[in-house]
Amino acid sequence: MTTIGILGGGQLARMMALAGAPLGLRFSVMDTSAEACAGQFAPLVVGDYRDRATLEEFASGIDIATFDFENVPAGSAEWLSRRVPLFPDPRALGTSQDRLAEKTLLGELGIPVPGYVAVDTPAGLEAAIARLGTPCILKTRRLGYDGKGQFRIRAAADAAAAWEALGAQAAAGGLILEAFVPFERELSVVAVRGRDGEFRTWPLTENWHVDGVLSASLAPARVSPGLEARAVGHARALAEALEYVGVFALELFCLDGGLLANELAPRVHNSGHWTIEGAETSQFGNHLRAVLGLPLGATRALGRACMLNWIGEMPDPVAVLAEPGGHWHDYGKTPRAGRKVGHATLRADDDEALAAALERVGAALGREAQVAPVVARLRE
Amino acid sequence: MTTIGILGGGQLARMMALAGAPLGLRFSVMDTSAEACAGQFAPLVVGDYRDRATLEEFASGIDIATFDFENVPAGSAEWLSRRVPLFPDPRALGTSQDRLAEKTLLGELGIPVPGYVAVDTPAGLEAAIARLGTPCILKTRRLGYDGKGQFRIRAAADAAAAWEALGAQAAAGGLILEAFVPFERELSVVAVRGRDGEFRTWPLTENWHVDGVLSASLAPARVSPGLEARAVGHARALAEALEYVGVFALELFCLDGGLLANELAPRVHNSGHWTIEGAETSQFGNHLRAVLGLPLGATRALGRACMLNWIGEMPDPVAVLAEPGGHWHDYGKTPRAGRKVGHATLRADDDEALAAALERVGAALGREAQVAPVVARLRE
Ligand SMILES: Nc1ncnc2c1ncn2[C@@H]1O[C@H](COP(=O)(O)OP(=O)(O)OP(=O)(O)O)[C@@H](O)[C@H]1O
Ligand SMILES: Nc1ncnc2c1ncn2[C@@H]1O[C@H](COP(=O)(O)OP(=O)(O)OP(=O)(O)O)[C@@H](O)[C@H]1O
Repeated sequence: MTTIGILGGGQLARMMALAGAPLGLRFSVMDTSAEACAGQFAPLVVGDYRDRATLEEFASGIDIATFDFENVPAGSAEWLSRRVPLFPDPRALGTSQDRLAEKTLLGELGIPVPGYVAVDTPAGLEAAIARLGTPCILKTRRLGYDGKGQFRIRAAADAAAAWEALGAQAAAGGLILEAFVPFERELSVVAVRGRDGEFRTWPLTENWHVDGVLSASLAPARVSPGLEARAVGHARALAEALEYVGVFALELFCLDGGLLANELAPRVHNSGHWTIEGAETSQFGNHLRAVLGLPLGATRALGRACMLNWIGEMPDPVAVLAEPGGHWHDYGKTPRAGRKVGHATLRADDDEALAAALERVGAALGREAQVAPVVARLRE
Repeated sequence: MTTIGILGGGQLARMMALAGAPLGLRFSVMDTSAEACAGQFAPLVVGDYRDRATLEEFASGIDIATFDFENVPAGSAEWLSRRVPLFPDPRALGTSQDRLAEKTLLGELGIPVPGYVAVDTPAGLEAAIARLGTPCILKTRRLGYDGKGQFRIRAAADAAAAWEALGAQAAAGGLILEAFVPFERELSVVAVRGRDGEFRTWPLTENWHVDGVLSASLAPARVSPGLEARAVGHARALAEALEYVGVFALELFCLDGGLLANELAPRVHNSGHWTIEGAETSQFGNHLRAVLGLPLGATRALGRACMLNWIGEMPDPVAVLAEPGGHWHDYGKTPRAGRKVGHATLRADDDEALAAALERVGAALGREAQVAPVVARLRE
């Protein structure tokens, strides 16, 4: 009997535990909150990641560890990795925790990224804006998620406001200015690499964000085989460079037929939730297989799938459940503005059936705007 | 937040809780054993079903109740149904707990059953054997499962041995003698009926038993549309007569193109496990939707699926996980002879791909005999 420890007890840990149960696994989850929603289905160890006693208690009850949350302090991850096998390696975590280190690695691997400049001072910010031009985005190098820690700069005159918003974090974790990419599409590669180096990707996913937070995903994305091959090549190069073990997502911007890497998420990813019903093996199942050194499962899609994120509060489930391919995911969280509380996945055999289902659900829930770009893409 | 109480904490309760988590449900499971495997993923209330204090504790923590185990004492189920909504209704349970009541109802509905005679005494057994002829099977009317409480009578001379084995139970629960059906196939209809009367069935399943215990299931069964329609008609008639709410299975023998009903299982059923990966909505998901009054999910098959039961101990998972459509289910139980400890489901797009996968798995695990009848059927 193997017990998997998960650092972080949110919806990713919860869905991982649910996917791991059929493999005969047990779970233990560590989180800073006693309300962490994975705790509804797995024992929860509550405490600060920097607290040795809590980490010790967590470590003593598990055989192997992984993450639901990439911002676990690097020191804590390293300490834990000396106690139990920890996948992915803290090094991959370290790289992806720092937007600058991440972009440096991407550059070394020949993977194109948007223009960027590290920023330390107000004067540095002004120089960086002059160099990259506007619009551009100031981001904290560390601890960003769901578009938090970002400031959009429309004109050079916004520099002061941007520094006002984020300058305090320049000393602690550093800042980075990125050129704004007027992308045509956002894509992600959800990939898995086994302990033996075997590498697989799910079909490419197209994503739509609202206010920096994922709103909808469509898979398989409607892209040319050439573009898909390039995206997969980038993901493979990254995985090999980091000797990555487990599932990760590479977020990409697509512009004029080219690809620019946005960021690496070193964990199962929101844009891979459609794989639960939409693929032969889900990202959660394959992450566990990878971490345990078991054979990886097939990543082929079963028809087409669209994932809709529920932010803030759960809608009424009836419209989704009434759809022939409607699947509901309520994370068991307390509603709160901006919080990811659940998602739905609609699956269908062809584009038009999926588009029609999305339209019905959008209308029933008053969420026409959320489904509209996906429907438009399916009918292109 | 709704908490579902499940009477019985075996693998069925476990898989139900795993299927219910995405619906935002919480679970509480009652079982006589503190080791009940559903307890690994849901809080467990341990005690005898007849113990009022335990039942009271269980009832106080739940909003609605259902079963993983149909042999819960009828009195306990009735007591509980006065405290919280309980589905299916204890009446359906009562009927299916008694093979005689079950056969009587089936007869009333015009559903053919094998010849049978109630038996109370050794003389009654001899008379029954004379009437039905040999071979025949003596069964306890109550508490049978997985072929337990059965004695096969090959010749009239076996009567004494049969009475020796089961006669003691004649006074307690009664006995029934059944004609042995030289069936060509065993089929089951896994069906679901909602609170509003909506009725759906998954594609018919063909089953193979070894020593009275399910060994393999294949779905969709390769049967004529006419036969399938008759089987579904029988299931619908039963569901309506019992005003059934939830999932049940109707086990059928197929002989000379005709159908004879064997028994009704008033719960999610081993022959429906393939629906987890092999159908748009699983039997577990739909059972919960039915019980909660939510819309029922689509029951269509996604390709072909074969479920292999693991009895006594789990084989090595690698051969199954290495198959493109291989899915593993380890119930987290302690190995014990005759115990259902897990299953695997192999899914494929066509018969030949499924047959080939079964052959590889059978050879890798030294279980050629288990897969052979399924492979033969797929290649017929
Ligand atoms: N340089 C950029 N050009 C254009 N849009 C951008 C750029 N950077 C970020 N965005 C937009 O903001 C979204 C979130 O940005 P980013 O991925 O950097 O944030 P994050 O907080 O790390 O989010 P997460 O990890 O949850 O995806 C992107 O998916 C994109 O829609
Ligand atoms: N009358 C019969 N003729 C031929 N075979 C029979 C008959 N009754 C039972 N069997 C065989 O034994 C198996 C189990 O019998 P039955 O369904 O009555 O047992 P059970 O203990 O109620 O099992 P479960 O509920 O687990 O299916 C059947 O699936 C069939 O293979």
